[in-house]
Amino acid sequence: MPKPTPTSAGDYTAIFAARLDALKTEGRYRVFADIERLAGQFPRALYRPAPDAAPVDVTVWCSNDYLGQGQDASVMAAMQDIIARTGTGAGGTRNISGNSHELVELERDLAAWHEKEAALTFTSGFVANEAALSVLAKQLPDCIVFSDAANHASMIAGIRNSRAEYHVFRHNDVAHLRELLAAAPADRPKLVAFESVYSMDGDIAPIAAICDAAADFGALTYLDEVHAVGLYGPTGAGIAEREGLSHRLDVIQGTLGKAFGLMGGYIAGSNLLVDFVRSFAPGFIFTTALPPVIAAGARASLKSLIAATELRRRHQANAARLKELMAEAGLPVLASESHIVPLMVGNAEACREAAKRLLERHKIYVQPINFPTVPRGTERLRFTPTPYHDEALMQALVTALREVWRELFLPLAA
Amino acid sequence: MPKPTPTSAGDYTAIFAARLDALKTEGRYRVFADIERLAGQFPRALYRPAPDAAPVDVTVWCSNDYLGQGQDASVMAAMQDIIARTGTGAGGTRNISGNSHELVELERDLAAWHEKEAALTFTSGFVANEAALSVLAKQLPDCIVFSDAANHASMIAGIRNSRAEYHVFRHNDVAHLRELLAAAPADRPKLVAFESVYSMDGDIAPIAAICDAAADFGALTYLDEVHAVGLYGPTGAGIAEREGLSHRLDVIQGTLGKAFGLMGGYIAGSNLLVDFVRSFAPGFIFTTALPPVIAAGARASLKSLIAATELRRRHQANAARLKELMAEAGLPVLASESHIVPLMVGNAEACREAAKRLLERHKIYVQPINFPTVPRGTERLRFTPTPYHDEALMQALVTALREVWRELFLPLAA
Repeated sequence: MPKPTPTSAGDYTAIFAARLDALKTEGRYRVFADIERLAGQFPRALYRPAPDAAPVDVTVWCSNDYLGQGQDASVMAAMQDIIARTGTGAGGTRNISGNSHELVELERDLAAWHEKEAALTFTSGFVANEAALSVLAKQLPDCIVFSDAANHASMIAGIRNSRAEYHVFRHNDVAHLRELLAAAPADRPKLVAFESVYSMDGDIAPIAAICDAAADFGALTYLDEVHAVGLYGPTGAGIAEREGLSHRLDVIQGTLGKAFGLMGGYIAGSNLLVDFVRSFAPGFIFTTALPPVIAAGARASLKSLIAATELRRRHQANAARLKELMAEAGLPVLASESHIVPLMVGNAEACREAAKRLLERHKIYVQPINFPTVPRGTERLRFTPTPYHDEALMQALVTALREVWRELFLPLAA
Repeated sequence: MPKPTPTSAGDYTAIFAARLDALKTEGRYRVFADIERLAGQFPRALYRPAPDAAPVDVTVWCSNDYLGQGQDASVMAAMQDIIARTGTGAGGTRNISGNSHELVELERDLAAWHEKEAALTFTSGFVANEAALSVLAKQLPDCIVFSDAANHASMIAGIRNSRAEYHVFRHNDVAHLRELLAAAPADRPKLVAFESVYSMDGDIAPIAAICDAAADFGALTYLDEVHAVGLYGPTGAGIAEREGLSHRLDVIQGTLGKAFGLMGGYIAGSNLLVDFVRSFAPGFIFTTALPPVIAAGARASLKSLIAATELRRRHQANAARLKELMAEAGLPVLASESHIVPLMVGNAEACREAAKRLLERHKIYVQPINFPTVPRGTERLRFTPTPYHDEALMQALVTALREVWRELFLPLAA
């Protein structure tokens, strides 16, 4: 480590540059595609290859706007109306003048949807997980956390930042979870944290069996449903609703940023638990509230999602159809149980190059998924067909994929 | 610690309840006021005393919407327009389809405003501080952080979560900072983190002297300007702009949630530094991007703020006038150098009761500020007069305060 120069410029610049160069060498450096969505034309969008280049028409294949709610007319109208009525922002934290009436109502709606007493919103799903898990794990005296190996970065951040003892159980492995629970002192508080739909493999947790294990050892249960809310269950409240298990979860965490088509995150649970998180989480207390425009949009989107049975049917049908088409074409698609369609590449550079060709030559936008989002060696393209990706778009995608796979000598299905 | 019951309900509930009861006993339990802002009538708003009660007309005296930008017609129109054109949300993280064209443009605008090469937006100012500080302190090998004693919770969170060594210097005490810098090994990277306007006392940091100290010891400088952006300097870019010091700061951090009247936060700095934070911060990478509606609103608000010289003049004039009126009335107002008007109470329960009477009897909404937002014994009411709080509103406020102060036997100015 050389001595920093008095100007504070030289050496730090060198450190930044070296770390960024390492990312580039590994093929993990991210370049964000400049995308302009077009209301009413989803999944079509405009892509700008360079800051001042003319935009190009592309088909978006990797959005988390899973049902195309981002162009729902009732949501757009609700947002425009509330801006006219109440203005642009919340004006403060929840405690200091920022607690808008729309947000209060949204939390009531979300709680009812998940069959819970209360809900609490955050500026993102990441913050919801970080704040709620860190408060629970830190403030419950001597708490031990049991965390699924595939849990999202935001859950890991919350658990680590709590400084509580934690154990990682093998992904979706209830026997391993039971072993770890049994090995822990019976009289310490425990928290089991897991997801319903895992966003990169698209597999689904054995929720009932995990709740059984938690109950046998007196542990709280914390379920992240961000890739399921809006999409599964009779009213779209998630996998827990689909399986009739909402009452067995102490916390259901969700997002307004994916199927809702907006931004923000939330937790739902008992009055006491939610009040506890509300009262002790710095990341909640010291943050400007979500503005009325987002709250009103989320309320309209929730109303629309509850009724979206037909969209949910088409969503699942299209996902199944795309997996079928890929499999028929010999492409190494992962047989997921959900709406997520992972296509394996297994190499960061190849993954990036495949995505580049798809975008430049075929006007197909799908982002390469590399480490740290997925483990090294499992790099992939991750497709999220929506109800608006019709048969023609799917056929065009598979044709383009076949071409790119051939050109780059990428592995076909075994 | 009793053994948790197999249902996971009983004991946890008791822990939550006990902790919440302790807050209530201390007078620190927060009840959020249900507020509905009214575009075009700021600082007037509707307050709902109970979930289904009829709303009451109140004057908001504690908003961070410092210039009333939350009702700026150009911002409202920009937001409504972009919703019509691009829909409601970003649809993904910055890397995975969520990088909207409006957000790219917003970051260019913010960078130019702060005379920096680049800027990066986050979902809140809290996340901006937490993410940027934790990445810098963690990823710079062996970094030591020097943090002002009055720094905001979000900066503390970032510094702590980095697990880097850190030292706290006495508030605005440059001699103490120099002592700590001198005592640290010369060859380790260093970062000095501080704010320009401190939001609770309203005092201002000696930025030039702190930058001198940092330069003498080769430390990076990180300045939080969230309570200054939009409000100070010829174009409103903050205290650093006002004092001609922007070029001496490695990072300027700001918010879109206060003077901008929206939500979200950002950092501005060199291309390399911003790229470094962008590439290594989990709280940035794994979060849905700010939607185009917020980005477009922020761009319009920035344009309006740059030209808001007259609003800034009235803002300062009203703050000075309110402090004068309070002092004349013998009220214990803190002689701040900024737009923030703290009125000292010094007791959590009394502070809460004063706020309650102001709201219920005088239709004046100001939130009590208690621990942990301020140290115990310094509880206060914090007023934020805007350009729209006219002489009549100020006179009415001071009359009401005199009455409440008399009724509750609160301390007058020494």
